[in-house]
Amino acid sequence: SRTYKLAVLPGDGIGPEVMAEAIQVLDTLASKSDFSFQYDHQLVGGAAIDAVGKALPAETVAACESSDAILFGSVGGPKWEKLPPNEQPERGALLPLRKHFGLFANLRPGLCYPALTASSPIRPDLVEGGFDVLCVRELTGGLYFGQPKSRTTLPDGDIEVIDTMVYKKSEIERIGHVAFKAAQLRRKHVTSVDKANVLTNSVLWRETMLEIAKDYPDVTLAHLYVDNAAMQLIKAPRSFDVMVTENLFGDILSDEMAMICGSLGMLASASLGKPKGDGLYFGLFEPSGGTAPDIAGMGIANPIAQILSAALLLRFSLGLEKEAVTIENAVRKVIEDGLRTGDIYTGVEGTRKVGTREMGNAIVAAL
Amino acid sequence: SRTYKLAVLPGDGIGPEVMAEAIQVLDTLASKSDFSFQYDHQLVGGAAIDAVGKALPAETVAACESSDAILFGSVGGPKWEKLPPNEQPERGALLPLRKHFGLFANLRPGLCYPALTASSPIRPDLVEGGFDVLCVRELTGGLYFGQPKSRTTLPDGDIEVIDTMVYKKSEIERIGHVAFKAAQLRRKHVTSVDKANVLTNSVLWRETMLEIAKDYPDVTLAHLYVDNAAMQLIKAPRSFDVMVTENLFGDILSDEMAMICGSLGMLASASLGKPKGDGLYFGLFEPSGGTAPDIAGMGIANPIAQILSAALLLRFSLGLEKEAVTIENAVRKVIEDGLRTGDIYTGVEGTRKVGTREMGNAIVAAL
Ligand SMILES: CC(C)[C@H](C(=O)O)[C@@H](O)C(=O)O
Ligand SMILES: CC(C)[C@H](C(=O)O)[C@@H](O)C(=O)O
Repeated sequence: SRTYKLAVLPGDGIGPEVMAEAIQVLDTLASKSDFSFQYDHQLVGGAAIDAVGKALPAETVAACESSDAILFGSVGGPKWEKLPPNEQPERGALLPLRKHFGLFANLRPGLCYPALTASSPIRPDLVEGGFDVLCVRELTGGLYFGQPKSRTTLPDGDIEVIDTMVYKKSEIERIGHVAFKAAQLRRKHVTSVDKANVLTNSVLWRETMLEIAKDYPDVTLAHLYVDNAAMQLIKAPRSFDVMVTENLFGDILSDEMAMICGSLGMLASASLGKPKGDGLYFGLFEPSGGTAPDIAGMGIANPIAQILSAALLLRFSLGLEKEAVTIENAVRKVIEDGLRTGDIYTGVEGTRKVGTREMGNAIVAAL
Repeated sequence: SRTYKLAVLPGDGIGPEVMAEAIQVLDTLASKSDFSFQYDHQLVGGAAIDAVGKALPAETVAACESSDAILFGSVGGPKWEKLPPNEQPERGALLPLRKHFGLFANLRPGLCYPALTASSPIRPDLVEGGFDVLCVRELTGGLYFGQPKSRTTLPDGDIEVIDTMVYKKSEIERIGHVAFKAAQLRRKHVTSVDKANVLTNSVLWRETMLEIAKDYPDVTLAHLYVDNAAMQLIKAPRSFDVMVTENLFGDILSDEMAMICGSLGMLASASLGKPKGDGLYFGLFEPSGGTAPDIAGMGIANPIAQILSAALLLRFSLGLEKEAVTIENAVRKVIEDGLRTGDIYTGVEGTRKVGTREMGNAIVAAL
């Protein structure tokens, strides 16, 4: 019987309460199987700043290094917004973690369940039957990490700020392959998003996607400018299968996609590094939503994104595909049974509003 | 009686056919007033490439320089996508025009008429009664023009591409003042959009907006991260009054806003330079939509964005406020009367599908 070691970083806001439900789900699975989990709970984000003075303590990094994967909650909140930007939870913890572990591939499955289309802000006829978009976002390049990043006072007293968008062709290639491989297991269509009519980065991006496409003759490739993609996601979400794009465009479009699906509270994400050779990846798994400080501690947050992130962890970092599907089916079942946290509750007949714990318990019961 | 000189640049795709309707509207207004228009028709974009080999001929620039304002159609299309990026219609004509004339302030009024909410892809309860957002986009800074922009082959054979996001505080200040001044004439609320949790640019952007806000005690200021703004626009379009943001974020969010309003075919835009001292601006006025090559020449494109762009020209470059309002009211009337081009036709009772010319004629009749 195998023991998997997981670094558990709940973070701030609703992080701890939704994390508790994910752990409950993992423990239940383990109790029915021949493997077990050993959790290494660590501080991160605002919680770490408050406790030990920095957003990403060395101990937390070390714990992650000696784990099979990282289950992450969320970080940030108004309490830490006055700190110097580089010390804040997001820039001080989340971005360094992504960079340190080379987590270049961010997968965000945008799933709008047929039973949840009423929660989508999109007109019913456009989302009827639900939809399923996979956003593949490059996560360690572009404007997030490019150097120089600077702030200079000019001789005339004016201030000049610089951020740099930089990509290497090899970085574009590796994320491209992730997208095309994912598409092969789905509906075999990749939409690459860029701004090739303005950015030098995007011209190389588009060229590279065209080249890679030759290795995947069974997959079709379409290109959209990012401004057009922001429109098509709303008007025709069902026209997407896999969407692949650079870091900042992916940040914007994946959140837009999340909203179109009905709630950020439903969306899981996997941030993966290089394959380890055995078909598995070291990765960080986190809900796409934020810390939701306005509802933190109230027991009403939606735990589904965190629970589905745990499912992605089982799939990509541990190779437990069957168990991942078990979680995903359990989530689908409670949704079909009509359970809704506040963020997805619309009063539709046959649905009932529940809190974080009740939702978690129902998913556990459905496993 | 005064004669205004207008540079008319119809461009490609549907540009010429929607431009014809805008000119018809302007001529009708002039025939009822004591002023007249002198049009200087010039080549631009793909049309100019085909005729004289470059997207922005010197003659076109000269004509713009000696005019009171530029009425622009749209440029680009598949025919010219194989050209080197810098020679293509967008990068070869539109961006240089914006830069040459210092058109730093792009105003995009996102108007969803109460009678048109059925055309919006957003759920009816979220857009009921329509809404009215003004997007103020900085247009001559950021990633569009920042240097260096480069492409380098590295010693190991990899290729590296760089674009640079750069802003000066003075550039942020001047667009900030445009936004706050506009808000004073509206519902007195500014939403500034940035990515201050990641970008050095955005940290200065946010600081500067906070400073400027002190000059406008009657206006409230809110900040949103760009990923969150992409969500809020969909879920709560009525919560926005004036949205102000940098060049690329504005490109993405204003198109998203356009889609939420129902159609890009409805959205006008004004790109303004420094005030000329008399309260007027030199400017370029263009529809927010593209050349729509798929329907070009078919007589079915929506001319309203072009006609409303002409109204903005009257307001900002000629000071003809009364005449601008006359056009805007005429457009509103034909919409209320039920006329719809294909892009906004949904089959709702009391509406009728019409072509470009019929829509133009109806607006002329309603003046
Ligand atoms: C918190 C922030 C730095 C982060 C990002 O921009 O990547 C978040 O928005 C996300 O999408 O994971
Ligand atoms: C055509 C393109 C260069 C342009 C831009 O990105 O500014 C367009 O999308 C716009 O919004 O006016």
